[in-house]
Amino acid sequence: MPNPDRMEAAVHAYVAAFDHGDADAVAALFAEDATVEDPIGTPPHVGREAIRAFYAASMQTGAKLKLDGPVRIARPYAAFAFQVVLHWEGKDQRVDVIDTFRFNDDDQVVEMRAYFGPTNMHGFA
Amino acid sequence: MPNPDRMEAAVHAYVAAFDHGDADAVAALFAEDATVEDPIGTPPHVGREAIRAFYAASMQTGAKLKLDGPVRIARPYAAFAFQVVLHWEGKDQRVDVIDTFRFNDDDQVVEMRAYFGPTNMHGFA
Repeated sequence: MPNPDRMEAAVHAYVAAFDHGDADAVAALFAEDATVEDPIGTPPHVGREAIRAFYAASMQTGAKLKLDGPVRIARPYAAFAFQVVLHWEGKDQRVDVIDTFRFNDDDQVVEMRAYFGPTNMHGFA
Repeated sequence: MPNPDRMEAAVHAYVAAFDHGDADAVAALFAEDATVEDPIGTPPHVGREAIRAFYAASMQTGAKLKLDGPVRIARPYAAFAFQVVLHWEGKDQRVDVIDTFRFNDDDQVVEMRAYFGPTNMHGFA
């Protein structure tokens, strides 16, 4: 089983790396064969390189992540609520999201699933 | 696909029914063959009657649920953060939880998974 302290640290490292625009650091949190489903139900990004490219593109928007409450740890899963905040074409925009991470025994993320939809997107109209 | 408005209404009905100690009303939100994994990774409660009994026992503690931020809707899934608040043996206790619901096309919950662990339990020592 993964270590709960390292699982929680990985979530905070994920938020920090995203905010620094460091796609390599985000990708390094994932296992080589990890999957990212963002949002859940869409075709997954499979493998660390595809995941790196996905995050690099996401960071182009200048979006920042703001954790909303404590990280929930139910080994091997972590779940956390957050806001994606961005300023785009003169508008302040926000998306309310919950992510789940599943970890392997090496404390790497093997599966990420993001929960959000149109009702969670504000300021886009 | 389930209806997003009815999905969100089901989450609010779930919180209200739990707070009223109405296990029948909670169970009625679930499909006949639904599963409840609380917390995720433990053996699931399978079927509406087992789910009703599980919630009836949970409600014996007098616990109340307090939503923590907006419900995330990613059809057919909903995810929501909340606190379980209870007063037990003279102590105020709190558990920070994130639940995911998967719905069927009749807007019934077919799968519930709860994310929390020891690091999310406060006031139990």
